[in-house]
Amino acid sequence: MTIDIFEAYESNVRSYCRSFPAVFARAKNAELFDETGKGYIDFFCGAGALNYGHNNDYIKDKVIEYIANDGIIHSLDMYTHAKREFLEFFEKEILIARSFDYKIQFPGPTGTNAVEAALKLARKVKKRSGIFALMGAFHGMTLGALALTTDRDSREGAGVALNNVTFVPAPYMYPELDTIEYIENLLTDDHSGADIPAAIIIETVQAEGGVYVFDELFLKRLRILCDKYDILLIIDDIQVGCARTGTFFSFERAAIAPDIAVLSKSIGGYGFPLALTLIKPQYDIWSPGEHNGTFRGNQIAFVAAKAGLEYMLQNSVENQARIKGEKAKKYITDEILPLSSKLKLRGIGLILGIDMTSLGGNNISKAVMKSCFENGVIAERAGRDNAVLKIMPPLTIEEDKLLKGLEIIRDSIKANISVSKRTFELKG
Amino acid sequence: MTIDIFEAYESNVRSYCRSFPAVFARAKNAELFDETGKGYIDFFCGAGALNYGHNNDYIKDKVIEYIANDGIIHSLDMYTHAKREFLEFFEKEILIARSFDYKIQFPGPTGTNAVEAALKLARKVKKRSGIFALMGAFHGMTLGALALTTDRDSREGAGVALNNVTFVPAPYMYPELDTIEYIENLLTDDHSGADIPAAIIIETVQAEGGVYVFDELFLKRLRILCDKYDILLIIDDIQVGCARTGTFFSFERAAIAPDIAVLSKSIGGYGFPLALTLIKPQYDIWSPGEHNGTFRGNQIAFVAAKAGLEYMLQNSVENQARIKGEKAKKYITDEILPLSSKLKLRGIGLILGIDMTSLGGNNISKAVMKSCFENGVIAERAGRDNAVLKIMPPLTIEEDKLLKGLEIIRDSIKANISVSKRTFELKG
Amino acid sequence: MTIDIFEAYESNVRSYCRSFPAVFARAKNAELFDETGKGYIDFFCGAGALNYGHNNDYIKDKVIEYIANDGIIHSLDMYTHAKREFLEFFEKEILIARSFDYKIQFPGPTGTNAVEAALKLARKVKKRSGIFALMGAFHGMTLGALALTTDRDSREGAGVALNNVTFVPAPYMYPELDTIEYIENLLTDDHSGADIPAAIIIETVQAEGGVYVFDELFLKRLRILCDKYDILLIIDDIQVGCARTGTFFSFERAAIAPDIAVLSKSIGGYGFPLALTLIKPQYDIWSPGEHNGTFRGNQIAFVAAKAGLEYMLQNSVENQARIKGEKAKKYITDEILPLSSKLKLRGIGLILGIDMTSLGGNNISKAVMKSCFENGVIAERAGRDNAVLKIMPPLTIEEDKLLKGLEIIRDSIKANISVSKRTFELKG
Amino acid sequence: MTIDIFEAYESNVRSYCRSFPAVFARAKNAELFDETGKGYIDFFCGAGALNYGHNNDYIKDKVIEYIANDGIIHSLDMYTHAKREFLEFFEKEILIARSFDYKIQFPGPTGTNAVEAALKLARKVKKRSGIFALMGAFHGMTLGALALTTDRDSREGAGVALNNVTFVPAPYMYPELDTIEYIENLLTDDHSGADIPAAIIIETVQAEGGVYVFDELFLKRLRILCDKYDILLIIDDIQVGCARTGTFFSFERAAIAPDIAVLSKSIGGYGFPLALTLIKPQYDIWSPGEHNGTFRGNQIAFVAAKAGLEYMLQNSVENQARIKGEKAKKYITDEILPLSSKLKLRGIGLILGIDMTSLGGNNISKAVMKSCFENGVIAERAGRDNAVLKIMPPLTIEEDKLLKGLEIIRDSIKANISVSKRTFELKG
Repeated sequence: MTIDIFEAYESNVRSYCRSFPAVFARAKNAELFDETGKGYIDFFCGAGALNYGHNNDYIKDKVIEYIANDGIIHSLDMYTHAKREFLEFFEKEILIARSFDYKIQFPGPTGTNAVEAALKLARKVKKRSGIFALMGAFHGMTLGALALTTDRDSREGAGVALNNVTFVPAPYMYPELDTIEYIENLLTDDHSGADIPAAIIIETVQAEGGVYVFDELFLKRLRILCDKYDILLIIDDIQVGCARTGTFFSFERAAIAPDIAVLSKSIGGYGFPLALTLIKPQYDIWSPGEHNGTFRGNQIAFVAAKAGLEYMLQNSVENQARIKGEKAKKYITDEILPLSSKLKLRGIGLILGIDMTSLGGNNISKAVMKSCFENGVIAERAGRDNAVLKIMPPLTIEEDKLLKGLEIIRDSIKANISVSKRTFELKG
Repeated sequence: MTIDIFEAYESNVRSYCRSFPAVFARAKNAELFDETGKGYIDFFCGAGALNYGHNNDYIKDKVIEYIANDGIIHSLDMYTHAKREFLEFFEKEILIARSFDYKIQFPGPTGTNAVEAALKLARKVKKRSGIFALMGAFHGMTLGALALTTDRDSREGAGVALNNVTFVPAPYMYPELDTIEYIENLLTDDHSGADIPAAIIIETVQAEGGVYVFDELFLKRLRILCDKYDILLIIDDIQVGCARTGTFFSFERAAIAPDIAVLSKSIGGYGFPLALTLIKPQYDIWSPGEHNGTFRGNQIAFVAAKAGLEYMLQNSVENQARIKGEKAKKYITDEILPLSSKLKLRGIGLILGIDMTSLGGNNISKAVMKSCFENGVIAERAGRDNAVLKIMPPLTIEEDKLLKGLEIIRDSIKANISVSKRTFELKG
Repeated sequence: MTIDIFEAYESNVRSYCRSFPAVFARAKNAELFDETGKGYIDFFCGAGALNYGHNNDYIKDKVIEYIANDGIIHSLDMYTHAKREFLEFFEKEILIARSFDYKIQFPGPTGTNAVEAALKLARKVKKRSGIFALMGAFHGMTLGALALTTDRDSREGAGVALNNVTFVPAPYMYPELDTIEYIENLLTDDHSGADIPAAIIIETVQAEGGVYVFDELFLKRLRILCDKYDILLIIDDIQVGCARTGTFFSFERAAIAPDIAVLSKSIGGYGFPLALTLIKPQYDIWSPGEHNGTFRGNQIAFVAAKAGLEYMLQNSVENQARIKGEKAKKYITDEILPLSSKLKLRGIGLILGIDMTSLGGNNISKAVMKSCFENGVIAERAGRDNAVLKIMPPLTIEEDKLLKGLEIIRDSIKANISVSKRTFELKG
Repeated sequence: MTIDIFEAYESNVRSYCRSFPAVFARAKNAELFDETGKGYIDFFCGAGALNYGHNNDYIKDKVIEYIANDGIIHSLDMYTHAKREFLEFFEKEILIARSFDYKIQFPGPTGTNAVEAALKLARKVKKRSGIFALMGAFHGMTLGALALTTDRDSREGAGVALNNVTFVPAPYMYPELDTIEYIENLLTDDHSGADIPAAIIIETVQAEGGVYVFDELFLKRLRILCDKYDILLIIDDIQVGCARTGTFFSFERAAIAPDIAVLSKSIGGYGFPLALTLIKPQYDIWSPGEHNGTFRGNQIAFVAAKAGLEYMLQNSVENQARIKGEKAKKYITDEILPLSSKLKLRGIGLILGIDMTSLGGNNISKAVMKSCFENGVIAERAGRDNAVLKIMPPLTIEEDKLLKGLEIIRDSIKANISVSKRTFELKG
């Protein structure tokens, strides 16, 4: 199971493979297998791209059937049978069923592309160039989306100034500051230096920012604020959409509708690249082809996406997310938090974060991640100083696997707390 | 075969479907079939994404086998069996076999993403923000790549100023101007207003720009110029790479090696999203994760990509491109150009353009495209005023299909020349 | 005293003349006379350009003598007798006397030009493009300085995006927020979205922002913060330098030295255009001529500037500012604030602001300004909603004129409070 | 006549003083005197700021009288007697007399400020952000104007990307390229990458660019082009306006009227800072105060400006420029050009350039400038590689001084040609 070839041929930019240096070959639901056959419980889940599990059989059958029958695979953005099937299902079973009214754009099959499309459209609609985003945000890696991404290392990669964005402190950063009032003040204070933006973009849960969940009141007030000041509200639901938080769209819990919503990752159903930019009809003022691209119609992803949605509805995956999320929370609260008063838990549905900032930050979280991996759990870190262990299994994870994984995490944290105590005592 | 659902649910941004308003269901090699079973010869070829044909059986078998065996589908950028197989094959059979030495970056599965990565890296390497690009260029739709794209409609979609780019007239635009001397003058004239760029980016054939082929001398001199002035040369081989021009990389004919090369479209083998940014080892100064993304490891695309390369080598697809290209050129020269002295032919390998600028531009090219479609050929237009009919079938097209398609084009042009003559006479 | 010609010939951009529609002809110390001979007490003072009074006789004599003797008037930035005299005097009597060590740049004779030079240099020194500035700031009208200016109307005039600046809430805006900690968090939080800036620029008193005085502790902590994070501190002393706050440099009270300080307005002595950019020697890494301009050596301004400084020192003008400032504060506190509990007073030395935000904002302040003018006092408004009446007479104002002016202000406020009460009662 | 103090106290940015290291004290018409009393013939003329000579007695008397009578010196942009006198005279005797119709803006007293105002207004009028400028252009040093300035050293001083400008080759650069057609192609080619600009800005003579005179046909065609494509034409007449080329506005010879014209330098009459932005009435859509500044009303400059214009008209200074220009051209053609076939002469009126590019460029031009200075002539260099000696005396220069100065230049060139020949022979 050599990794020499990767080191020899692949660019230094490779990242996650450094944290999890196995060569993976197969996968099923919540488990990955490396070339030697060793299994790993997957709490990373393609960063949210595999909500219905690895190689979900229901979807798999449809995919193989489609390929076997020479269903059209690539057709740019032409009309296809598979796209129509997807469109129809998505409109009826997802949008109308939830009383949403959106036009659907296929903007290229990645999240960053969907965000770029949303930004272009918002600027076109409002004829303004600025965007407000929250500190802690992550929205993508291409130049327009990167300007909205707050991670300093990522920003420094741009090589040019990242502009046209005003960052606003996230609600959790300054409890004494009311974020909505702060934004309103930026808009109304004629000496704030902030130009009125075309849009405000948020994630309802900052995943990469460290698993911070914004409460419903904040989301509702933001929606009202945007309307009051004639600003579009864009919700980036790439990581926490597709039932991750317990509802298909993460903003359903606040009973709001953004003007533009952005989906990717699990919308592809089977881990295939797909992205959607959802647009309130009155804002669908695109000219034909104004945002184009070769892979706007990834047919196999349409097939998988529709199958994925069917599976989700038939199996109450939204409920699964809620129920398993509660179980995981209970376990962490009962078994892990007691390990140290410096540990914190945040999250909603099946995206949970154990914050080790006060416990030692990057050093301890890295050691924990390593122990987890060695003991068969893949879990990534996020947030400031990479101090938050992110728990994000497939929503379809078997409960015993979920608990087994959490046990391994518990043991890994426990072991590393002991180590750091010993190190401390030896030094002392 | 209703398209109502698309019109009702899909954003106005949809484009190609407007030119070819059928609902496609199946495809095989060079032929598309709509829901009614009607076949169309495909001279569009996913804008260059299907060089080995639709649903190529050799690739198809590997793909189905992989999925059936629960090969891992999604794993972010972790090490996988499929990726290693691809890397190894690509390095040995493609790069080393052609005496190239590149590190391979998987930058997200679309061309625009690969261009964005190339720009970031060039700027990081040279610590300069400017890029030179050619008028007529097309490099993508996300903000960084869009700044390099010349098409005015696309640029206007940005909603913000597109900066850090200097456009240079393409060699074909001002025959009296030596483009290399012009660029050199921009660099050496201390009053040119042009800041020394990090990189010069070109396509060796401007496909979207109207099928303009840059000659070898130009490419060689550009390579020398970049070295002389310490500027990186980036070649965007997204549309004309993967054997389209008769060699795997389009720049092989000039015996040059860019510092960074960008591939997408047909590299995915089967129409699956995949993109590569190839980097000379000395410039691979990325920090881990400095450019990341969810779909950097599209495993099914790795499987298809390797199979596609195998197929290409085993079946001498590069030669096929050259031979069929010559046949197509001969047919057009003998049968189509004589229809009017105002028609022009350009191209290399199996990317050919029939330029109707002098014949009436957009009006006539649109009518011809429509006639072609009605008679069973899908061919898109490109270039200024959309006046160039682009002929770009799969390289694996059967020769009778190729000639049949060209006949339909001939008849379509002929018919439309008659119509416009009649219209003219009636008015006269 | 017709103003027809102005309305016919001068651009609509003209501003202050609309508030004070007289045609002025002569002036002496704190008094302006219009063409009819009517006098006005000047509480506006050229927006701080006339700290030593209009047509100060001591300076006047030197100026006339210089011109009469054909002293050189214009010589770009060549060495001149007058410049050397000024340089020597400024270094010894102003800088060394206050233990400051700065190289002196003459960047073109306006404040905005001096700010542009400071920005260029800071960016060159630190090789970073960003600047932090405070909400409420005003730094000038040319593109670089305008990006730092917060007034929305001014910003909208730019016609292009104003970038490379991060605005930080001023200390008075959110009392619950410690501004220094907020800035430090922007710098240390790896997800703040703020890139490390080349410099932080502040005014020690936000004059245009509404006469907000930053306390010494804030200034000291900011100085320490800049050192800690390797960021330059730029102080824009254009409006409140030259003794206005009671010390020559406004930052003397905090016993700090900025890395770059910017002076203009009253440094010209007699109202002549002049500006200085003062640079700590280690940062004077300019190449010769890297920032140039035609009027970098306004010789008559050098003569007047030196004479002005002599006058200032000989007549303890700094003390005058303090003493008269206290008298004015006392008068306002005793006689004006009691008119309404909604009035607020802020200021230091002889820059004072009566804040009418709670009393009715722009409407009332405009009416008061108008009454003042009609009764012979020229005073401008500043700040949010233009709600702050700014009191900024020459530091050399005769005390009876100062009190007379304040009386007129008191009566104007009183009258307008009655009017608005009556209006209110009539409506009620 | 020590320069120690300058070296000790003044920033390294100082420039011209390095070429002419004397300390100047007095001046009269075309002669400067240093502190030792040594005279220098002034062929530099404040870079065009002293067209009516140093310390012109006619203007001097008015200036002294005004100051002596306590005429108001500083009043921001309020109405004044002096401004009205200037406005009325300028409108009637300059504008209406030449059939021009412009509103007058006082944008701050420097050229760069006037250019910034012009850019803002053009962008506001056309709601577009781009500007076209010519390679070789110089328009100023503040960020907006600097983006239009082509000199590489100046641009590198910016510290941020200079954007929103497209540079077009100047007519003299590629004789085979028709500049107007090139621009038209940028505008009409839908793949040029150039966005339609708000304005095209030019100097009718590129002074800093190396004394290149644009012919009338070019100027007329540019005017027509701008109208055809709804683009504003801005002429920067800062250096070559005020009669320098033989007419008050340099564009009079082409019988065109720009939409915005920018004046500074000699408009101040006596070397005092002043600048004007002239605006066709239909484009004067400024909001009050949208571009402001402290020194928009430099009263002493208004007095001097009006007196300067009176003097110019009374003494036919425009004619003087033409006549003396012809004499200087004849002398150079007869006496200097024969020294070497590698010398070239360009110019119009009294702005002439002797181009030494082929003779050795910067090295020889620097040596010549030095010899000239040692022998009592001040003349600066301009253009690429600083290879052009710029001859730009006051238009009022006595003819014997003009010839004497040219003799010294001749002798300096002659001596340096011999030196370089000898050096060459010694090396050979």
